[in-house]
Amino acid sequence: MKINGKHFETIYIKSGRKPVIQVIDQTLLPFRFEMKELLTVKDVFSAISEMTVRGAPLIGATAAAGMYLSLFEYNGTPDIDKYIHNTAQYLASSRPTAVNLSYSVNAMAGEIRKGVTLTDKIKLARDAARHIIDKERENCLRIGEFGFPVIEKIASGKKGKPVNILTHCNAGWLACIDYGTATAPIYLAHDKGINIHVWVDETRPRNQGTKLTAWELQQHGVPCTIIADNTGGHLMQHGMVDMVIVGCDRATTNGDIANKIGTYLKALAAKDNKVPFYVALPSSSFDWTVADGINGIIIEERGSEEIKYIQGLYNEEIISMLIADIDSKAANYAFDVTPARLITGLITENGICKAEKNSIMNLFPDKKSI
Amino acid sequence: MKINGKHFETIYIKSGRKPVIQVIDQTLLPFRFEMKELLTVKDVFSAISEMTVRGAPLIGATAAAGMYLSLFEYNGTPDIDKYIHNTAQYLASSRPTAVNLSYSVNAMAGEIRKGVTLTDKIKLARDAARHIIDKERENCLRIGEFGFPVIEKIASGKKGKPVNILTHCNAGWLACIDYGTATAPIYLAHDKGINIHVWVDETRPRNQGTKLTAWELQQHGVPCTIIADNTGGHLMQHGMVDMVIVGCDRATTNGDIANKIGTYLKALAAKDNKVPFYVALPSSSFDWTVADGINGIIIEERGSEEIKYIQGLYNEEIISMLIADIDSKAANYAFDVTPARLITGLITENGICKAEKNSIMNLFPDKKSI
Repeated sequence: MKINGKHFETIYIKSGRKPVIQVIDQTLLPFRFEMKELLTVKDVFSAISEMTVRGAPLIGATAAAGMYLSLFEYNGTPDIDKYIHNTAQYLASSRPTAVNLSYSVNAMAGEIRKGVTLTDKIKLARDAARHIIDKERENCLRIGEFGFPVIEKIASGKKGKPVNILTHCNAGWLACIDYGTATAPIYLAHDKGINIHVWVDETRPRNQGTKLTAWELQQHGVPCTIIADNTGGHLMQHGMVDMVIVGCDRATTNGDIANKIGTYLKALAAKDNKVPFYVALPSSSFDWTVADGINGIIIEERGSEEIKYIQGLYNEEIISMLIADIDSKAANYAFDVTPARLITGLITENGICKAEKNSIMNLFPDKKSI
Repeated sequence: MKINGKHFETIYIKSGRKPVIQVIDQTLLPFRFEMKELLTVKDVFSAISEMTVRGAPLIGATAAAGMYLSLFEYNGTPDIDKYIHNTAQYLASSRPTAVNLSYSVNAMAGEIRKGVTLTDKIKLARDAARHIIDKERENCLRIGEFGFPVIEKIASGKKGKPVNILTHCNAGWLACIDYGTATAPIYLAHDKGINIHVWVDETRPRNQGTKLTAWELQQHGVPCTIIADNTGGHLMQHGMVDMVIVGCDRATTNGDIANKIGTYLKALAAKDNKVPFYVALPSSSFDWTVADGINGIIIEERGSEEIKYIQGLYNEEIISMLIADIDSKAANYAFDVTPARLITGLITENGICKAEKNSIMNLFPDKKSI
């Protein structure tokens, strides 16, 4: 996607004697657009856990690049297979909910294991990391193409009036490599001249909607309006939302999805007001080993400081400010699970399916579910 | 309620040659506890519209005090009935959703009209304003007494484990004169030794949950935890909420209720997870002229700066900070309507009733509904 007219992707592996991973520092947006260089595996771990990079596909891609980088830190002990295994475990532990992360490090470990010499392993790792990145980019493009007709159909009934789409958190290109998941159909429809307006949920506590989604939509020229997370139900009651599209951090074989905390509440409101509710996700976000999302998906708990403090711009500086009584307790659950029964459809790189087992397996026949 | 051991109420009319209305400046909490003096009718208008005072019962009480104050600003033109009428209209326009406000100024205007001389009118106005304040205090006490058995019953099944109550916004004593509406049963249960824990919704965009509810519960020693507004559904899915109690800005004869934006989403989650959802309100919050809440209640739209900026504490000072791209658009709907079908019961000063016409009219037989 373009920023001030220049094409950017969210991650770039710069070759060299020791490679460098360049990412956009998402903690500074929308106030400053800066690239950050990740030089070590520890840098990669911190970038994921501290959310310099975030979004399931981008987390997976960054961890893959981290696995590649790790080979340049290998000092001979313990044996290399053990080292790769440990590194994969370490990176997988940087965040618990997105399943892309563990897939990605496991796939990398598998590829690396095939190499005989360290040089072989490095070459295999580089190709595998690039493949994961390319694949996620391509998946987003295809999600856009499969999702587009849904928007086009709604637009045909609106006689030129804007199609109002509500989204939660950031499942935009900043969460992926390019295009985004939830945003891919939106960008495509906008580029094809469909009149679109996006309601952007602020997405407390980290405000990814306000800080990332509104910013990237604005950069692309898509009209959008930020709302408090509390607002979606009211808008739907008054016919001001034509559809909801969100991303996903982990989907189960039954079609339940874990996504940013609050997604479930919007899905309930969509159901109550007969607003179609779509989830856009690459197949790398399916956990083929879990059926029941509410009982089977680990929900990350983050620090209470994310609720009690907030980042923003004051006197031209990005600062962190206290917004609660210092003695208040706060709890910070990062995701919730939206049961399949509330979901109109899953938009994947293989097409759109219902949020139920048979329909999912028809799109992905080579996956062996539980 | 007590603050640092000293008893406070949210509003106090100080007599004198020209009376002064003392209120707690709720925009400074929880960082500073300061009283503010309202000296003119214009001060009263600003205190309500800028939310120095807020909460339906307190808005009504403050406007009543403002009507009393207005008699000291009367300069002979136009005729006094016209002047009183204009003042009532002016104060009623300070915020559109809470119906207590228009009841209160109309009741005051009616009382004032009965006085023959200005001195008579002043005396009548003072008594009427004090009556409204006393009545709201008493209503809250009774709401507490009627709501208490609901909590007591839940507690009896929890074998000493805490009763987890979720609340949204601030319907505490800061929204009323004393005790609060939603909090009255909570304070009573806590004082009687029931183990209670409150999940406090942050309540974006003005964060009344974080800033007011958590603070007043802490002052009273009630254990509580702040959560992002997005979180309630997840907690309910996991059995971590035993009941929801919220306040109300306007209720209809059908039992629909307008309350702080986001209440509807929590009510949907409560229904979906079979968690009892109660609304605590004095009869002064019923609009006897409206049946259908979604189509009949005016929802206030406030400025976008409340979404794009946030107040907090930085370097010991209370500041306002930008939390969005300066060019982003934002929309700020202050309330939403929760349909009666999602409400387990209405807790009023006359008892608990179902959220439906007959049940409401049985509790308030002297009210003539539409």
